[in-house]
Amino acid sequence: MAAAAFLKHGKKIVAIGRNYADHVKELNNAIPKEPFFFLKPTTSYLPSGGKVEIPRGIIAHHEVELGLVIGKGGRDISQSNAESHIAGYALAVDMTARNLQEEVKKKGLPWSAVKGFDTFTPISSFVPRSLVTDVHNLNLQLKINGAVKQDGNTSDMIFKVPRLIEHISSIMTLEEGDLILTGTPSGIGPIKAGDEIECLLSDSQGKELVRLNFGT
Amino acid sequence: MAAAAFLKHGKKIVAIGRNYADHVKELNNAIPKEPFFFLKPTTSYLPSGGKVEIPRGIIAHHEVELGLVIGKGGRDISQSNAESHIAGYALAVDMTARNLQEEVKKKGLPWSAVKGFDTFTPISSFVPRSLVTDVHNLNLQLKINGAVKQDGNTSDMIFKVPRLIEHISSIMTLEEGDLILTGTPSGIGPIKAGDEIECLLSDSQGKELVRLNFGT
Ligand SMILES: [Mg+2]
Ligand SMILES: [Mg+2]
Ligand SMILES: [Mg+2]
Repeated sequence: MAAAAFLKHGKKIVAIGRNYADHVKELNNAIPKEPFFFLKPTTSYLPSGGKVEIPRGIIAHHEVELGLVIGKGGRDISQSNAESHIAGYALAVDMTARNLQEEVKKKGLPWSAVKGFDTFTPISSFVPRSLVTDVHNLNLQLKINGAVKQDGNTSDMIFKVPRLIEHISSIMTLEEGDLILTGTPSGIGPIKAGDEIECLLSDSQGKELVRLNFGT
Repeated sequence: MAAAAFLKHGKKIVAIGRNYADHVKELNNAIPKEPFFFLKPTTSYLPSGGKVEIPRGIIAHHEVELGLVIGKGGRDISQSNAESHIAGYALAVDMTARNLQEEVKKKGLPWSAVKGFDTFTPISSFVPRSLVTDVHNLNLQLKINGAVKQDGNTSDMIFKVPRLIEHISSIMTLEEGDLILTGTPSGIGPIKAGDEIECLLSDSQGKELVRLNFGT
């Protein structure tokens, strides 16, 4: 496979939680001492232009995130080697059933269902690594019906990209086509029936790298 | 792909928790009112004959479980159609970093890491569906160094196989090669360096269906 075809062939999505301080605060969570993650199924991918299905009774929150597409797989990847394992990037939204998540957090239950519904990972097309000069200076923006809701920069990550890859690969082998979601900046909130969501990834010069659009 | 090659091509492992009353009691958990599940990465598969790696500082518990290998994928599968989506079975052990699991349960954090280490899903070869006449009357046995530790029967599942498939597929699409782990009977406990683990799946007549062996 080519990593660019990760939507079709990739086997896992590893999603980091609480990686931007402002977002950690808005949900009244504690700043983590080390990265943590959960898995999302690849059946949750929704290519740009699609519609998120909001299950009955669910409050579905958007979390716009930078995705890392793994090219060369590996285990126990060091921070100094981490970048060479990245084939490229994608812009993603980690949709979250927030009301169910509050329940499972209280009960100490897994997050897999509240993060894993079909269509709960809207995802852009592939951005080759060569187009990105500094992964830690990218703008992530999400608008609903034209109003800016999230507007963050990857420079604010608590744990940087090499640390994330080192941490995940110390637990589980990364494979070509895997996607790592790197956490969301502040501004999360619900999307509702009829909303039009537009996300933009741009670099420090304001140059657009990729867009992601979806409805409900 | 053929479902029999699920180890190589399957994309997800969906693992049911607390599905045998005696096991729920031994961990002082509540009997669930509906099924719940978590995801394990397919990078955690360990084919029979391999060695489980126990990470430093981890108490690694065995949970022997019946695995369902999905043949025909689907979404919103009804209980009456569920069996037709099963291509066959496998015997599996859902290895669990129990001490870390207790910590993440208290903190309301995801289970993905504590269940997802490389080698944490020892797995037998594929058992075609045609060899099993009654999925709800199979014996699951696990021995450590010859001593029986787990000895259960699938008739004791709280939620039966059709209900599990209905529940999971109401949240996420099942695909060919996916594996569903159906929960563990009582008798879980730690495995230690040097242990030899042997698991047996047999039918109500005592006929052996498949074995699974691994070391540490
Ligand atoms: Mg997120
Ligand atoms: Mg989880
Ligand atoms: Mg289990």
